[in-house]
Amino acid sequence: MSITVVGSVAYDSIETPAGRRERCLGGAATYFSLSASFFTDVRVIAVVGDDFGPEQEAVFAARNIDTRGIEHAGGKSFFWEGSYLENLNEAKTHSTELNVFASFEPKIPAAYRDSEFLFLANIDPVLQRRVRESMPQVKLVAGDTMNYWIKDHRPALLEVLKGLDVLLINDTEVRMLSGYNHLVPAARAVMALGPGSLVVKHGEYGATLFHSASPKGKSAGSAFRAPALPMEEVIDPTGAGDSFAGGFFGYLASQPELTPAAYRRAMFYGSAMGSFACECFGTERLQQLSRREIDDRFNVFRELTHLD
Amino acid sequence: MSITVVGSVAYDSIETPAGRRERCLGGAATYFSLSASFFTDVRVIAVVGDDFGPEQEAVFAARNIDTRGIEHAGGKSFFWEGSYLENLNEAKTHSTELNVFASFEPKIPAAYRDSEFLFLANIDPVLQRRVRESMPQVKLVAGDTMNYWIKDHRPALLEVLKGLDVLLINDTEVRMLSGYNHLVPAARAVMALGPGSLVVKHGEYGATLFHSASPKGKSAGSAFRAPALPMEEVIDPTGAGDSFAGGFFGYLASQPELTPAAYRRAMFYGSAMGSFACECFGTERLQQLSRREIDDRFNVFRELTHLD
Repeated sequence: MSITVVGSVAYDSIETPAGRRERCLGGAATYFSLSASFFTDVRVIAVVGDDFGPEQEAVFAARNIDTRGIEHAGGKSFFWEGSYLENLNEAKTHSTELNVFASFEPKIPAAYRDSEFLFLANIDPVLQRRVRESMPQVKLVAGDTMNYWIKDHRPALLEVLKGLDVLLINDTEVRMLSGYNHLVPAARAVMALGPGSLVVKHGEYGATLFHSASPKGKSAGSAFRAPALPMEEVIDPTGAGDSFAGGFFGYLASQPELTPAAYRRAMFYGSAMGSFACECFGTERLQQLSRREIDDRFNVFRELTHLD
Repeated sequence: MSITVVGSVAYDSIETPAGRRERCLGGAATYFSLSASFFTDVRVIAVVGDDFGPEQEAVFAARNIDTRGIEHAGGKSFFWEGSYLENLNEAKTHSTELNVFASFEPKIPAAYRDSEFLFLANIDPVLQRRVRESMPQVKLVAGDTMNYWIKDHRPALLEVLKGLDVLLINDTEVRMLSGYNHLVPAARAVMALGPGSLVVKHGEYGATLFHSASPKGKSAGSAFRAPALPMEEVIDPTGAGDSFAGGFFGYLASQPELTPAAYRRAMFYGSAMGSFACECFGTERLQQLSRREIDDRFNVFRELTHLD
């Protein structure tokens, strides 16, 4: 079943210990949709500037991603500049230029309205909510957010959380959002805000899935932890979280039924896609990838964690 | 088969967000031996002062741990004071008093000489090496170390590493010891120094096992990652790493054959014991534990990580 994703399509200038790249194609919706496209049909809602041309279009087209919801506005695309020189797990932002994103009003093409899966990538929660409300037919909604919205736009974010089935955030964000320091009570508090399932991403250590049906007061025996791949070298962690989300949600959307086992496999596919994203700068690795490589890596993850 | 362990038996004053305890029984050899005693016979080599009396002896006796190798010297036992107020993953040391440990010369009781497993807990590498050389008959030797020895006693530590089968250290230590930032090349470099197997402990994120037989230049497909338990509350992380080592090595010593599958299960038992250690201050939880609870937790770990 198809996924509609709303989020940023952008340019990134990135510096890591492995080198530097200027103005790579990036943005959460870009990474998410490339990653999810290996599992299901993906449709993007975003806004770009005059600097987004046929070459960038071709990246989406090569993966059969529907870009009719990418609005072309006059001006420049969203731009982000950051580095990971001291800590590969956390970017240091040098510059963020919203550009055309500053006045973005998401419009949902009629052809997207039968999507049954919706992903609200990390953008202003006011926009996330508007898109969510415009697509009442969806059967599963997942979303992401970040420290800035948690701290300074909390009321709007809380409205979004009420409408989410799955929230994907990182360790710092789950603590900031919940006010709890330990993972299990933090997860419980966040799920009480709306999302029935929560994926907490631990960077190089993988991710943990919680379902709100877990028995309370217990040490989360029914949680599920997917490892990350122990890496030979991280070239560029940009987009790893969005690629994780794309693999996770893309796999779920490809399944006939959303069983607990499907969620577990989705966690492994998310980890696999996150690990590929780090192997090259920007979206390079996702553009070259094959489904065969993804399934091989899924098996590496099984081997990495299974007793027998 | 029995394990001989050499290391500290000490008193700890500990402060965590959950409270404060003065002069708990502690020390790496204490945590290790209590933990390993659930799997096999354990014999301790250490030194204590006049402040170590029948009450402390009884803690070891209750778990049938052989303490004939604990030397009673005049003076005070090793004392450590630390807190985890800002970061539960890393202690802040306020005070270390070596006391009787300053002039410790390990003596190995004749009755220990048929031990086939030897654990060199975190002490001066000169002493680790001496004990290793006094027990040439052992069939598997594992050890631990810390930043202080890596930085300031490197030549002595390198001699110890040559004689180790398994080294258990944490993320910071593997990076410091190898000079590499990424886990896979760091692990490979450390194993090139001697240990055929390496366990890297990731605190609240579990631990990864590497074997030097892994194909080089690959993303460690044959590594094995055990999760840590997502915790409801960490009361006191002191001794979690030593308890992990005790569960890991104790389980190995209980096995008829050291197969790759035995190593994997040993990682889960290590994680289980580390998780118990955090549930109370000091050794309290390990003293109350049953093998049944340990096996139940092993199954929780399986449930936490397995796809089906």
